[in-house]
Amino acid sequence: MAASPASRLSPPRLRTPILSPHSPLRRPCFSPIRAAKSEAVLSIGTHLIPHPRKAASGGEDAFFAKSDAGGVFAIADGVSGWVKFLKLSVIWAEKDINPALFSRELIRNSSNFLNDEEINNDPQILLMKAHAATSSVGSATVIIAMLEKTGTLKIASVGDCGLKVIRKGKVMFSTCPQEHYFDCPYQISSEATGQTYQDAVVCSVNLVEGDMIVSGSDGLFDNIFDQEIISVVSESPGVDEAAKALAELARKHSVDVTFDSPYSMEARSKGFDVPWWKKLLGAKLIGMHKLFTRCGKMDDITVIVAQVKTVTVPDDEGGDVEEQNGNEQGSAATVPSAQ
Amino acid sequence: MAASPASRLSPPRLRTPILSPHSPLRRPCFSPIRAAKSEAVLSIGTHLIPHPRKAASGGEDAFFAKSDAGGVFAIADGVSGWVKFLKLSVIWAEKDINPALFSRELIRNSSNFLNDEEINNDPQILLMKAHAATSSVGSATVIIAMLEKTGTLKIASVGDCGLKVIRKGKVMFSTCPQEHYFDCPYQISSEATGQTYQDAVVCSVNLVEGDMIVSGSDGLFDNIFDQEIISVVSESPGVDEAAKALAELARKHSVDVTFDSPYSMEARSKGFDVPWWKKLLGAKLIGMHKLFTRCGKMDDITVIVAQVKTVTVPDDEGGDVEEQNGNEQGSAATVPSAQ
Repeated sequence: MAASPASRLSPPRLRTPILSPHSPLRRPCFSPIRAAKSEAVLSIGTHLIPHPRKAASGGEDAFFAKSDAGGVFAIADGVSGWVKFLKLSVIWAEKDINPALFSRELIRNSSNFLNDEEINNDPQILLMKAHAATSSVGSATVIIAMLEKTGTLKIASVGDCGLKVIRKGKVMFSTCPQEHYFDCPYQISSEATGQTYQDAVVCSVNLVEGDMIVSGSDGLFDNIFDQEIISVVSESPGVDEAAKALAELARKHSVDVTFDSPYSMEARSKGFDVPWWKKLLGAKLIGMHKLFTRCGKMDDITVIVAQVKTVTVPDDEGGDVEEQNGNEQGSAATVPSAQ
Repeated sequence: MAASPASRLSPPRLRTPILSPHSPLRRPCFSPIRAAKSEAVLSIGTHLIPHPRKAASGGEDAFFAKSDAGGVFAIADGVSGWVKFLKLSVIWAEKDINPALFSRELIRNSSNFLNDEEINNDPQILLMKAHAATSSVGSATVIIAMLEKTGTLKIASVGDCGLKVIRKGKVMFSTCPQEHYFDCPYQISSEATGQTYQDAVVCSVNLVEGDMIVSGSDGLFDNIFDQEIISVVSESPGVDEAAKALAELARKHSVDVTFDSPYSMEARSKGFDVPWWKKLLGAKLIGMHKLFTRCGKMDDITVIVAQVKTVTVPDDEGGDVEEQNGNEQGSAATVPSAQ
């Protein structure tokens, strides 16, 4: 049994007022003009804060966000462990690899293939093509999301980049991270030991006007709780401000010696904890193999915040949303360039 | 940055071996016969344990599961708070309502509308029609899931019934509960104060052969952790045994005076906790307004476990999977009747 009936009061609802039973976009701002239709678009804000020790090089995260065909974005998180493990294993190349090269090329290729007709709004196919075209050595976690005009957000994810949808102040959809074991995520790779598009979690969710999408690298979700994400998003005047505020809060937590982060809580649940006698000395867990007094997790932090809006287009228009002049709110999309 | 590169060793993979770039079912048992194709089907096991105090009446959960068109199932959880709140609010009817009537009729109608051509594999439309046809007074949380032949599982959910997908021993997909506030879920209702199909979270996930689906009422997910679900499913010889074992473990936890359940942990995170001096006397939190020594949550417990399998059908066959004689493993589906 569920515990309590809803206590909200509202006017009686008709049970069959559906406008289009096959359209997932159920609450758009429909135009009063008969020969017009509503299409979903994303208003997108982005923010990237590199790992403090990698600020000079820009870090190892990469992303793109575009308003093409409703809205599309992707984040790739270069695996820096690559450098560390390089010298320990014969299967890796015998020279130091810059982990940013692979993630940046993967993102650049994803952006370049957007207009390939074989993509057909399928983020998994986009990932396949972008991966096949990437020649850099390395590996990365990656998430790609594409909004269809109907309001369906299609997602392909390999690893622990994440995406959440907030509706009416609650998380109503969330991706799950993929890990081989704690702190070793699935990763698209130049090597046979890595994953491919075939290992992606592929899912979709029907969105409505006003829904907020928050996506990011693990540097965001390891350092900030859902309730904080909801608060920041609700208090921000726009998507740009929300993305920046989320990234800065995650960065603040990542270097906070007192903050018990989602990362450290997850570590403890997996058996990685600090001995009791070290706790008495103030030690907390950070990183997989090291004990420091910090409890956040320093990392590259990429945040993409997108709001679902509607644009009204002539009903007989067959063109794509990217041919529209933005949305009604005048903030169709922020289009940062790939790293 | 992600922390560690994958350490698994495997033969090099070709990056473009995709058989059908538009099919989400990427690892089926393809038939060696050229004029054949693979289709996804569900092998389904179910188990329902009523609330201990409602065993005589069968409880207030209801469900159905069928192998029609690949596989479809639904769970509805009658809101028993209805009885409690009935006498406190003028907006409810002035007589005691059996909370099971609404959930059972909703499920029966969902099952009856399955072959309605307007459903077109859309669980949200099925929910709309089933709700419109339900005349009982009451309310219920509900989840409906339908597997397409291609391997795409389509889900519509209102409230806190849940669904998780397990792949390679990890939860790779999970729905999020919808609540107005703690312990008051969104609910399909006979009254205008409730939600409708328009409030459903509608999403889909591409499945592959071997994926395990675990769905249930909140009686399951309030009393059992993800890692326990994974362990039980991996140790069970079949879907029937897995469903039964999960329900029984959840029931055991629900009456366990020492088990700190997901429900009680969630309650504490929302500020519902026991005063420290009562804790010293052994008290723990259970229920929203009452303090007992039990820490699980007694409830109706419905569990559906489904495994994705493939059947080989002639390539020129246009018929539906429900016309197949089960799947290759000989356990196409358990088809319990609705409550």
